[in-house]
Amino acid sequence: MNIAGNLLIGHSMVRGNQGTSYAIDAATGEQMEPAFGGASQQHLDATCALAWQAFDIYRETSLEPRAQFLERIASNILDLGDELIERCVRESGLPRARIEGERARTVGQLRMFADVVRDGDFVGARIDPPQPDRKPLPRVDLRLRHIALGPVAVFGASNFPLAFSVAGGDTASALAAGCPVIVKAHSAHPGTSELVGMAVQQAVKDCGMPEGTFSLLFGSGREIGQGLVRDARIKAVGFTGSRGAGTELIAIAAERPEPIPVYAEMSSINPVLLFPHAMQSRGDAIARAFVQSLTLGAGQFCTNPGLVLAVDGPALDGFIRAAAAALGDVQAATMLTPGIHMTFERAVATFAGHPDVVTEARGAAPTSQSQGQGALFSTTDVAFREHEALKEEIFGSSSLVVRCRDLQSMLELVESLEGQLTSALHIDEEDHEAVRRFLPALERRTGRILVNGFGTGVEVGHAMVHGGPYPATADGRSTSVGSLAIQRFLRPVSYQDLPESLLPEALKTSNPLAINRRIDGKISLAQR
Amino acid sequence: MNIAGNLLIGHSMVRGNQGTSYAIDAATGEQMEPAFGGASQQHLDATCALAWQAFDIYRETSLEPRAQFLERIASNILDLGDELIERCVRESGLPRARIEGERARTVGQLRMFADVVRDGDFVGARIDPPQPDRKPLPRVDLRLRHIALGPVAVFGASNFPLAFSVAGGDTASALAAGCPVIVKAHSAHPGTSELVGMAVQQAVKDCGMPEGTFSLLFGSGREIGQGLVRDARIKAVGFTGSRGAGTELIAIAAERPEPIPVYAEMSSINPVLLFPHAMQSRGDAIARAFVQSLTLGAGQFCTNPGLVLAVDGPALDGFIRAAAAALGDVQAATMLTPGIHMTFERAVATFAGHPDVVTEARGAAPTSQSQGQGALFSTTDVAFREHEALKEEIFGSSSLVVRCRDLQSMLELVESLEGQLTSALHIDEEDHEAVRRFLPALERRTGRILVNGFGTGVEVGHAMVHGGPYPATADGRSTSVGSLAIQRFLRPVSYQDLPESLLPEALKTSNPLAINRRIDGKISLAQR
Repeated sequence: MNIAGNLLIGHSMVRGNQGTSYAIDAATGEQMEPAFGGASQQHLDATCALAWQAFDIYRETSLEPRAQFLERIASNILDLGDELIERCVRESGLPRARIEGERARTVGQLRMFADVVRDGDFVGARIDPPQPDRKPLPRVDLRLRHIALGPVAVFGASNFPLAFSVAGGDTASALAAGCPVIVKAHSAHPGTSELVGMAVQQAVKDCGMPEGTFSLLFGSGREIGQGLVRDARIKAVGFTGSRGAGTELIAIAAERPEPIPVYAEMSSINPVLLFPHAMQSRGDAIARAFVQSLTLGAGQFCTNPGLVLAVDGPALDGFIRAAAAALGDVQAATMLTPGIHMTFERAVATFAGHPDVVTEARGAAPTSQSQGQGALFSTTDVAFREHEALKEEIFGSSSLVVRCRDLQSMLELVESLEGQLTSALHIDEEDHEAVRRFLPALERRTGRILVNGFGTGVEVGHAMVHGGPYPATADGRSTSVGSLAIQRFLRPVSYQDLPESLLPEALKTSNPLAINRRIDGKISLAQR
Repeated sequence: MNIAGNLLIGHSMVRGNQGTSYAIDAATGEQMEPAFGGASQQHLDATCALAWQAFDIYRETSLEPRAQFLERIASNILDLGDELIERCVRESGLPRARIEGERARTVGQLRMFADVVRDGDFVGARIDPPQPDRKPLPRVDLRLRHIALGPVAVFGASNFPLAFSVAGGDTASALAAGCPVIVKAHSAHPGTSELVGMAVQQAVKDCGMPEGTFSLLFGSGREIGQGLVRDARIKAVGFTGSRGAGTELIAIAAERPEPIPVYAEMSSINPVLLFPHAMQSRGDAIARAFVQSLTLGAGQFCTNPGLVLAVDGPALDGFIRAAAAALGDVQAATMLTPGIHMTFERAVATFAGHPDVVTEARGAAPTSQSQGQGALFSTTDVAFREHEALKEEIFGSSSLVVRCRDLQSMLELVESLEGQLTSALHIDEEDHEAVRRFLPALERRTGRILVNGFGTGVEVGHAMVHGGPYPATADGRSTSVGSLAIQRFLRPVSYQDLPESLLPEALKTSNPLAINRRIDGKISLAQR
């Protein structure tokens, strides 16, 4: 495949005519060929029209062909080979091993959703058989299934050029649910986007899916991104990015004649709670693991540990010393874009200049302009409580340790936090009693609670929640990672007294799809 | 129990001090004793504080005690006996048999949710066992359950003084999910509300649930209703009512620092589609059944058939004649409130005066000022397409027949409709081919599709969807009736590498709750 800078509209490759833009080599700052043409309003309209035409056909594709389509996307992505990896490394500035791992995750996640589709449990089929002799009124024949919401607009994320972008989690779960997808590419990795887009486009053709099942647009966030969210044919939005951009999209979606759900993953500082016994017995080891998590991928993870809470004292001093020493050894790392790097440096400078904040350590000095230098700060519980600015996310390798007077103060600080993607507890068995008091507060504001680890590893599985109350995500009732994510793009429809021949396959009495169903409220396992 | 006009705040009965209001006998217009005192901001605050205190305890009540609590509410409501029925009949103007039926439904729905709680499937427990030897990285131990969102504000509905009010569907499903509930009573039936509220309050005491599990407030919609939605301790809203009031609540919820979901059921005209063969073979019988559904409960159902679409011609003329004759025989019926009656008369007068609308029939003349007189109108597909006002809901016994040029025009009209709670198809076997073309359009905009019936009967079961895309409801991804409604008030939380002793019961390896769980993605049925 050749990167040509084209929009992918259904089966076509189309030259955008609204300005041109280029990828930037993250490490060198050099402009990369080719030029990408931005989509016009006409392109946007044509794309939505194709998605809308595809919707009724694609959402009724049977489970096996839909699963094979997802698998084909995965294998087409692998077939891109080294061209994808190399381009992605240059555009993102992330190390090759990380990008290879991210590709494996992307492919694995598409294959997981293929299994989810085959399994059919996501249909949530339910049958309440009729009771013609019931008194005082006979009971009707009632059957329920979940159907796809409609075409979904997916916004590529800067920090996961593969796993949260063109064929990432949102795209995979929406396609699995039966929704056509229109991706608005992130300007940080257009070449990667086009390559992956062509792999998906080819899979649509390979598998005979309707043309509008997938499209990829480049262009301005304000014109094309917001335009997608405004378009009446778009019925849901998947977004990972900044709180500012996310809340703008949420407002636009709410103002539509027909408001639609926006699944925006926005902001999280991912508190790390160090409990006294664990800190006492192995503070140094925790500190080293913490710095590893903090600096992974130049800290550009939504699950990056941006806040550490612990009871003040010699053990915490020791933790900070060990963390500072470890951080001092960490090389500065290329950040995703010049803009992200600049925002990081500014935020770090603001923290450093804050009268109540102590700069405990910085990472090794940068060797180029594109690199972010790690930062570790500390403050007191009193200051943290007073200054809302200290609770804001810094995107990059920066974390703030809060010295708490005691566990009660630490708990109060937890209660002052907004919604979070993750909360990490470092505990020994002697800490369990104390932890019990924290769990309710953590559950109320966290998508994933983890023990003796850090949130930066996000397992793609069935029990994963990558979500959490606002503003971690716009809608804490769902997850963006893992098989449960398919539920974001579904809604229930009930069918009353339909003749067998008009019922959808999932609800026919003979169960031709061989899926598990709930009969009169009880799970009935499929005979397979 | 005595109706005293009190607020029910936790365990207490409190005299409201923000103005007084009275119930109105719907049939006679007379003011009924006693006076109800409105809640103040202090009452609101105290109520939310109690609910918040109760939340962490109530949400972790085990399944059996929570189920028994719901059953106790049901039996306490039955114990209210005739006092409840008589008060409710007077306040609503609805016939005794209907109110008795609605009580049965309310009690039945509480018991159904008790079974749903016992069953435990709503927890959605999932376990992905660890794989310590996995390469390149070991897999962590990941477990997921759903927890309650938090205290829920429920708004009583005028048209279902029992089933959609103080202990109605929203309250039952929220309590089942583990959410404390604060009900804002509807001013149309305050005595009914207080009686039912006392039954719930007593059940909280009987079952030793935390005090703030339930409260009931009277007062102004703007002050108390909107104040509840603004309060940071409220985490979701259940509402059934007008589109105007619903959209106001949605806007308030969206503007909060932490936006919350509003489940508002608002507006639906519930299209009835008459297909040619059915209309030809049994148009008269359908017309009679249609008028029965139209005039049931003075037409004051959210599922009332407000729109009939059919191909113009002699068969449709015959249908209209038969419906007109049937409607002429229907006695005018007391409407819920003078305000609802006035709005109905105005809307009917507007339709009657519309240049493109023909008044085909009116019901029998009213014998009192409180009664609404049925109305049947007709218009053409061209006029219906042109005038958005003809697509608006008239709350009461009024329906509009649209004469369509052909089936294609009828399908185009369907595609022009907003989201609907129900769509009813009247079909013979010879119509099936034609129906197939309509189903996708209906699925995209309807919560429940039914054949050869009308939507006014809403079965409380497992396969019921009482919902649908906007504006039928604010959130078409859920239902307000049936067991699936519990999902509105839940969110997933994931637990990574938690020691057994810190895991919630639902996720302990030994499965002490004996619930079905998903292990590595596959349903594992409980050993019971």
